[in-house]
Amino acid sequence: MPGGTAASFRAMFAALEPIGRDRASGGYRRFSWTGADLACRAWFAEQAATRGMDCAPDRNGNLWAWWGEPGPDAVVTGSHLDSVPDGGAYDGPLGLLAAFCAVDELRDRGVRPARPLAVAAFTEEEGGRFGVACLGSRLLTGAIEPDRARALTDADGISLAEAMRAAGQDPDAIGADPALLATIGAFVELHIEQGRGLVDLDAAVGLGTGIWPHGRWRYHFAGEANHAGTTRLADRRDPMLTFANTVLAARKKARLAGALATFGRIAVLPNGTNAVPSTVDGWLDARAPAEEQLAALVADITRAAGERGDRDGVRVVVTPESITPAVAFDRALLDRLGAALRGVPELATGAGHDAGILSAAVPTAMIFVRNHTGISHSPAEHADEADCLAGVHALADALDTLLT
Amino acid sequence: MPGGTAASFRAMFAALEPIGRDRASGGYRRFSWTGADLACRAWFAEQAATRGMDCAPDRNGNLWAWWGEPGPDAVVTGSHLDSVPDGGAYDGPLGLLAAFCAVDELRDRGVRPARPLAVAAFTEEEGGRFGVACLGSRLLTGAIEPDRARALTDADGISLAEAMRAAGQDPDAIGADPALLATIGAFVELHIEQGRGLVDLDAAVGLGTGIWPHGRWRYHFAGEANHAGTTRLADRRDPMLTFANTVLAARKKARLAGALATFGRIAVLPNGTNAVPSTVDGWLDARAPAEEQLAALVADITRAAGERGDRDGVRVVVTPESITPAVAFDRALLDRLGAALRGVPELATGAGHDAGILSAAVPTAMIFVRNHTGISHSPAEHADEADCLAGVHALADALDTLLT
Repeated sequence: MPGGTAASFRAMFAALEPIGRDRASGGYRRFSWTGADLACRAWFAEQAATRGMDCAPDRNGNLWAWWGEPGPDAVVTGSHLDSVPDGGAYDGPLGLLAAFCAVDELRDRGVRPARPLAVAAFTEEEGGRFGVACLGSRLLTGAIEPDRARALTDADGISLAEAMRAAGQDPDAIGADPALLATIGAFVELHIEQGRGLVDLDAAVGLGTGIWPHGRWRYHFAGEANHAGTTRLADRRDPMLTFANTVLAARKKARLAGALATFGRIAVLPNGTNAVPSTVDGWLDARAPAEEQLAALVADITRAAGERGDRDGVRVVVTPESITPAVAFDRALLDRLGAALRGVPELATGAGHDAGILSAAVPTAMIFVRNHTGISHSPAEHADEADCLAGVHALADALDTLLT
Repeated sequence: MPGGTAASFRAMFAALEPIGRDRASGGYRRFSWTGADLACRAWFAEQAATRGMDCAPDRNGNLWAWWGEPGPDAVVTGSHLDSVPDGGAYDGPLGLLAAFCAVDELRDRGVRPARPLAVAAFTEEEGGRFGVACLGSRLLTGAIEPDRARALTDADGISLAEAMRAAGQDPDAIGADPALLATIGAFVELHIEQGRGLVDLDAAVGLGTGIWPHGRWRYHFAGEANHAGTTRLADRRDPMLTFANTVLAARKKARLAGALATFGRIAVLPNGTNAVPSTVDGWLDARAPAEEQLAALVADITRAAGERGDRDGVRVVVTPESITPAVAFDRALLDRLGAALRGVPELATGAGHDAGILSAAVPTAMIFVRNHTGISHSPAEHADEADCLAGVHALADALDTLLT
């Protein structure tokens, strides 16, 4: 690997590092269409310009940088710029850093692409601001209705339409873009691994074969606000009790099912120390190896919530917010990449990705880079620079195979 | 009762009604030193001016309106203007409405006070902004250190000192005010009841005899942020589990102890749907008939939290934020008022009040007005106008006895 790649990787990483970083947590808050996101987009546009790649947003606000004329059978690589609240430095950006570094490597090798290459940055992959993960790729592929997307609101009540308009992007233009999709011959997303799979396999890089089915459900627990100091326990309808019981039930049922269930987000009204809450909303993130297992898990948790709600005098309403079916990436593409990458291990993941959404429309695969802590969605997420550069090299090999 | 009192009560109530009301919930958000609070204070000053009563804040920002020259052996009545988040219309303001109406009634009766009367509005009684209940009366009586009070912060990180300064009140002047306290001969607070005591007794008005010991404890649960989709359950240190278990343990232990325990407020970091939280903070509100029972209850809940935390790999840190000992109001004063009010029933309460804080320094009693819903700290709190006017009449009788 040329030393130039390491220096270039380091410089690009350093330019991105301070953007949207929270000083207290050390984590990132790069929410779509906020100032931090716009600064990341400017960084992306500058990387494209440096390489003479034309860069423009598509109708859904995803950014595209082209090597060669946009056109049919394009090879696309990329990931996302946005973060979860207090996320790490690699989740998303690593796929874009690697993409631009891979372009440099291919040019250093003297590769003459037989078809166009695009680097793409998808919007709101984390759902960190508007609550629907992979929003940019969902819009592009028509997996979400434009009207529903425009009406999504953030924690301050600002809609996606308002946020896009404020950032200079026309929200009336969003929605499925079959013309753009039709130009994509293959999509390869490089991403930091979000678990310990590659650590256990003792490998810097792996090929992603698929994604567990997963989704988000909002559990609304409606009780009755009351004074914490004067209302007899027997007279209460306390939704915090029902929520608490549901959290513990979800964990137990997921463990028994060999699945994952998490309540990581909560909203309480009125959220006062001396007030029994009127409502508690808890968001369930659930994942399982197969779709029928996932459905059974959520049904089990919902049943437990309802039974406890009956005891507590609390009404429970469960709303699915996004459900993503199981994804198996394109076998023929995986086989080509496996040959190019000379025996890197294969592994599946429980995490959703734009690659999972795009796989419904185009041949898709992923490349994972080892995460030494195994920790994700946290400032403690970490990939060694050597592993990142191994990822760059693998991505360059993969693109080389696909472009020529 | 003169018809004038009802009309005057209604007009004063109507002037206060729109201030700080949240349109969505119908509840009030009158947090200390915010615009809504300043509008309430302006209302108070206008009521005082209308009656020719000199009105000024004390060093701690509590408002005082005087009938007669401020001086020794004063009879003081009043309550508070601030609310919990989404609180009702009566909790606090009713005591001030009743106080001004009672002044009118005494003047209509031709009462010539032998000593001064003050109507007082205490600041931050609910602790709704800065987290310490009865902050104004605690400062006045020296029950909280001024340095600690100045450093209290609201949810946006604004300190009490900053908030006071922005509202034109000097935060350097806060602290115990023995000269002002020494002028108070008796304090009588009228307040809407916060439970069903008077409904069960079929009485519009009651005499408050005391307050259960109670307090607030912050339970800090520290785990490790991680990706909800990729972290094995066994690898997690999820503080939401420990919190949930503690909520259920608190309820059970309170029930067994004949006490009250509530987790109504929570803060989660990073509070993302697909992130295992790094930390959860839950605030425990606990109350019991006696101090040793309260201490044993909190110790039990803390032990349960620690045991579960050990299982979850979660560190639990418990910090008392405010603890108020049991209060028994002044027996001699209660007897005088009981005679004046001709056999109204007596009752204790689980709710804290400025009267409880002041009782450590001056003879104190309370008058409760029936709350037909029994609901408190909620927009559903309600007192019939007839019961409010019965409260005005009782307060006038009480003040009449004490002033002459």
